Order: sequence, then structure tokens, then C-alpha cells
Amino acid sequence: MLFSVQGSRTFSILSYNNNNRSNTKHVLKQRKVVPPLPAMNGGDGDLSYSQNSAYQRGAVEAAEEIIKSEVVKQFSVKKLCGFPTQTSFRIADFGCSTGPNTFLAVQIIINAIIKKLETESQNSKLPEFQVFFNDNVFNDFNTLFSSLPPERNYYASGVPGSFYIPLFPKASLHFAHSSSALCWLSELPKEITDRSSRAWNKGKISYTESKEEVFEAYSGQFCRDFERFLNARADELVSGGLMELLVPGVPDYLDQSHSTTASEIDLLGSCLMDMANNGKFDESMVDEFNMPLYYTHPKELKGLLENNKNFSIERMEILHNSAKHVTMPDPESRAMYFRATLEQVLVKHFPAEIMDELFDRYADKIADSSLYLKPDVQRSIFIFVLLKRLD
Amino acid sequence: MLFSVQGSRTFSILSYNNNNRSNTKHVLKQRKVVPPLPAMNGGDGDLSYSQNSAYQRGAVEAAEEIIKSEVVKQFSVKKLCGFPTQTSFRIADFGCSTGPNTFLAVQIIINAIIKKLETESQNSKLPEFQVFFNDNVFNDFNTLFSSLPPERNYYASGVPGSFYIPLFPKASLHFAHSSSALCWLSELPKEITDRSSRAWNKGKISYTESKEEVFEAYSGQFCRDFERFLNARADELVSGGLMELLVPGVPDYLDQSHSTTASEIDLLGSCLMDMANNGKFDESMVDEFNMPLYYTHPKELKGLLENNKNFSIERMEILHNSAKHVTMPDPESRAMYFRATLEQVLVKHFPAEIMDELFDRYADKIADSSLYLKPDVQRSIFIFVLLKRLD
Repeated sequence: MLFSVQGSRTFSILSYNNNNRSNTKHVLKQRKVVPPLPAMNGGDGDLSYSQNSAYQRGAVEAAEEIIKSEVVKQFSVKKLCGFPTQTSFRIADFGCSTGPNTFLAVQIIINAIIKKLETESQNSKLPEFQVFFNDNVFNDFNTLFSSLPPERNYYASGVPGSFYIPLFPKASLHFAHSSSALCWLSELPKEITDRSSRAWNKGKISYTESKEEVFEAYSGQFCRDFERFLNARADELVSGGLMELLVPGVPDYLDQSHSTTASEIDLLGSCLMDMANNGKFDESMVDEFNMPLYYTHPKELKGLLENNKNFSIERMEILHNSAKHVTMPDPESRAMYFRATLEQVLVKHFPAEIMDELFDRYADKIADSSLYLKPDVQRSIFIFVLLKRLD
Repeated sequence: MLFSVQGSRTFSILSYNNNNRSNTKHVLKQRKVVPPLPAMNGGDGDLSYSQNSAYQRGAVEAAEEIIKSEVVKQFSVKKLCGFPTQTSFRIADFGCSTGPNTFLAVQIIINAIIKKLETESQNSKLPEFQVFFNDNVFNDFNTLFSSLPPERNYYASGVPGSFYIPLFPKASLHFAHSSSALCWLSELPKEITDRSSRAWNKGKISYTESKEEVFEAYSGQFCRDFERFLNARADELVSGGLMELLVPGVPDYLDQSHSTTASEIDLLGSCLMDMANNGKFDESMVDEFNMPLYYTHPKELKGLLENNKNFSIERMEILHNSAKHVTMPDPESRAMYFRATLEQVLVKHFPAEIMDELFDRYADKIADSSLYLKPDVQRSIFIFVLLKRLD
């Protein structure tokens, strides 16, 4: 039982810091690491994820009624928790970021469980809830912990590590949740940065305007990753345990008159190319960079779920995220949303100094476009899935 | 089930940040909070706890052999874990700070458990280990998570919150550990900053040179806190679960020719008074500040343990921490050790700008003293206690 995938990355960073220790006696050095894994902007400042994630919150809110009705309908909490010998109910959120959306998601689940228990037996004792907030090790857990709801009815833990590997003991969770996170790939498909490959993604950073081989490479990586995610969770969930996924995606059919998050990333890529053409950095830097994000579509996701024999699909549908229409009314707020989410990945590769200009250019391009600021033209969706762990 | 003690503190800090949000669009604000609870210096720089805690590590190392022998002697792991229905073994470290000492402490425990299981039955399957690293919400968990051992044989979680309240569901832990942490009081006894009280601690920041009333106020707070700690852990530990405590303390008998950590804090207080006398700040700032640290002695601790009916005392002894003689050979390293531990509490009250001068003065005072740099004169001890949760 060794978890070297995560660990070896951590190790190299520690070595880096140790080799570069300052000789200045009185400087309290900040932890400075270059994230090899995606992390949202930390803290709670104007460019932070916590201040720029109302869009993602909309998906959680849209799922609330479904969770309420599904938990009441089919979930035997008492049987699941093994009452009375076990008295705690364990929930994990995979890819929680820094809050506050994760707190809402968790509370919706807990409220549904409590309501179900009260329905099952009015005199039954409520379980104690233990919630595990997971994200990769470069997530700002300090901000997450500082912003935990003051009066919460659960015990809170943070769990650092990639959710593509097991993070909990076997059969130790009753409910798993993940929202706006499964679009992040565990790594980039190798071939898209290989100049000798047909899938070399020259001058682009996403896949909506690239050769089919590029798209296939992204899609293939997503499918492998998603399978690893399901297998890891299958180990961790108790038999009968539920898993709610809110997967960012696109409709099965799309034409060129629509935009998606992936095409908006390609628009960001065009800003990078403009800056390269203006001599800010070499064009090869864009050739060598690709965003590790892929947006699946319902048919693809359904195929992957049906292939996995550990879960039954209890419900699957497209969510109507009304927040899309209100949370990003202008080019600047749309640029902020992207910056809060993508900046930490970009600064791994590009100089941090270019970020202001890059996102200013991006906001300008959106403002000038006939396509990108119409909510009804933006066709990104959230795919809601409720799975049950089979015996 | 509401945990508002921790929460209300957190809430006030968030409000503070929100009210002071910068108007500067492109500045990614760092989380900046004034810790109302003690936190060691974060990060891994020259003044960090992680680089200045070899002394505390010595206590963990000194306890290793005792843990090995006690676990083998009296601990039925199989019975405890409820094999084969439950397969994970859960360990928590209370007051873990940023590492690396906590990783050593946890590994010693896990190795002892594995050895015991192999002794009990050579063919038995090993449990999965789940480790919870606890410290208060202002601890630098980001550094803790970044420095987790690369190849570890356990699942890791961080648990933010004061260990004077319950942090886990009932009967959910098999082994609790705490080292170099129980000297930190949950709060200062009110009377020592009350000018009208007999226990007003004018011009001092600890209790070794103060009136008896000051000492009694500190001791009373420690006793109340320690009882709360035991009661919280009694709820969390399974019946038969073990708890290992390494409590910083002093011998039952001390005379004036010896120094202790508490008297060294009073020496730091004298540096603050010198600076006040030099006009750096008003003397009343020293009157109003007291360090929330108390060092118990074996008789006091034994009395508290015997009063608690939830635990049996399996072993109790004074540890020989040989690290004391080697980890702080000169005044500067001794000042660094103190700065890494105390700075975050000091900067809550005093300007951060004075810290360099304060600890330079402190190192100078130690260098000039006939008392403070002789290891054999420093009489601080660690009291090792092994407790078992009774049925």
C-alpha cells in the first residue's frame, strides 16, 4: 500500500525548496511551489476561486431538488450505516477547491439524509456526519479550512491527493460527491505535444479547432481517467453507497454557431498566439502548452458508466444551470471566472507577468465577439449522474 | 451538534477580510488572518517550525522504544479493529503542526501495530491505516500536506480545529497521539490581564517570576483544559483504544538555579520590557500580553489523569530527550526555536516589525547569561503517558 504517484511529485518540490534555501536569516519564506496539478486561485481576494465561482455554484443548486427526491426515494440510511453498531455517516467531496460551493453541496446531502432518516423513523437518533474535503495537494486548504461554515453539523477533514487514485480505506464512505472537477485530466495525453505525432497541437491550447487526432487524444485521456476515478470510488464506497457527479460537458451535437468552455479556452489560446506574434514570448511556448481540460458529452459518459460493473446508474440528466445567465454578465466577469480557474496552470508554463495582459486581451476579445457573450449560444452543460455502489 | 467555538472565530476573520477587500483588480490577495489561536511559523523557510523543531523531535524519538514494547505487550489489534468486518485502523495526531515530527510519530505507531499484528498471526491481513493530522485552523496545513512522506503506508487527512472540543465521531479512533502540544492553553485565564485582580501579571508574560496568584491562574486553566481534552478523546476513542501523550512539563521540584521553558519565556518578556523602556512601544502592551503556555509537572498531571474515569494509566514516565543537548548548541539556534514557536502569538499583539530586534535581543541575553545555555541546567522535561480507553 504505497501512494507514490502523489508522493513523488511532492518529493521533488521539497527537494527544490531545500536546495534553494535563502541565506537571509530573518525572512520567513513562503511556501513556493510550482503546481504540477491544477489548483484554483487560492485565498479570498478578487481573483480567487472563492470569489469567482458563482457559475459552478449554479450547478450545485440545480441538483438540489434531484438529490432531495432521490435520497428520500431509494436510500436506506439505517441499513447503509449499519446502525446501531456504527453511528457515523461519511461523505466525501472530490475536487472541493477552496469553498464556498463545496459547503453548499455537502449541506444539501446532509439535509437530505436527515430528512430521509426522520421519514424512516421519527424517533431514530441521527448519525454523526463526517465530511472529507478532497482536492489535490496544491489546493489552498488553508483558505478552505478558514472558511468552513461557523455552525456546521458535521466533523470536517481535508484530504490531499489526486482523486484518480484511492484516497480512503476500503468501504469507508457512504456518499461521494464531485462537482465541476472531473473535466480536469490527470495529465495531458503525451502525443499532443509530440512534434512527430499526428496529434501535435501546434498553436492551440485546447481541441475545438484542432485536428481530429487532437480531440481523440483528449477524449482517450478522459476515458482512461474517468475509469480510474470510478474504480477508486468503487473501492471506497460501502455497498449501497451513493455517488453524485456533476460533470462539466457539452451536448452530444454541436455546430459552429455555438460556443463552449473548450472553445472559450481556444479563444484564450488565440490571445496567447497574439502575444507571441507581438514578441512577448516565442510561439513555441504556445505549441508546447495545452490545457488539461476535457468536456465530455452525455453519450460518451453513459458508455463509460455502463461499462463499469461496480455501479448502477440511478439517474442521469442534463442540468439547467440558470446561473450561466446571471453570474457572468460582462466580459470582465467572464475573464475573472476563467482566470480564477486557469491561472495556476498557465503560470506553470508562461511568465506570471503576462497574466494581466492575457486576461485583459481575453475580455476585449469576448467584448468584440458576436458569439461569446450570449448565454444561449454558450452550450456548456453539467451532466448530473447519480450512481449506486452495487454489492 | 454544533461546533460554534471554532466557527465563530473563523467567521469574524472572514468578515474582516470581506470588509477590507482591495479595489486593485489584479492583485491576488494572500489569506491574511490574525490568529486568535497559536500556530507555529508556517512554510519551510529558515524561521519555520518545520526547520526548527529538532528539539521536539527528540521527544518523539525518545518515546519510540516504549511505544514498541507497550503495543506488543497489551494491545489486541484484531479485537480492537473488529476484524474482519472493519478493516481500517484510525490514528489521530492532536496538535501536529506542519511536520515533519508528526510523520515520524505516526510511522512509529503504525510500525508497532504492524509488528504486533504479525506477532499475533503471521498470516493475518494488515489493516489499512487512516491518519488524521489535527491542529487548529490557523496551522499551515498547506505546508503539512506538501511535505507528507512520498511513500507512506496510510491514507492522510487534515482536521482543523481546537483539540479541546470533539473533532471526530464517537468511537471512531483506535489510537490518539499528541506531542509538544498540550502546553498550549485554550485561552488565557482572564484574571491575569485584569488590573483589578490579585493575579494581574504586570510587566511579565509568563508565570515564573510572578505572584503565586498568576501561577495558580495558569495552573487552573491548564487543569480545566486538560480535562476537556481527555473528555473529548474519551468520546472519540474506541473501547480499548490507546492514547500516547508527550506533555511538555517541568520536574515536581525546581529551584532558582535551574531554567525551564517557562522561565525562558519570562526572559523573552524581559526583552520586551527593555524595548518598552527604550520607547519602542508602551509598557502597557507588555502588561496586557501573556503567553498562553503552561508547563505542568508529573504530580499535577497524574492527579488529573487519576481523576478521569474514562482511561487507565498504562504507563507514565519522564522521557530523556537527548536532543536537548544537541539541537540548540548556541544562542542563535535557541532564539530560532523560540521564534518558530512563539512568533505567531506575539505578532497578534506586538508589531511584526519588532520581531527581528526582539529575538536578536533574546539571543544576546542568552549568550550573556550564565544560566540559560547549559543543557543540564535547563530542566524542562517531557512527561510520557500511555492511556487506555476503558469500556
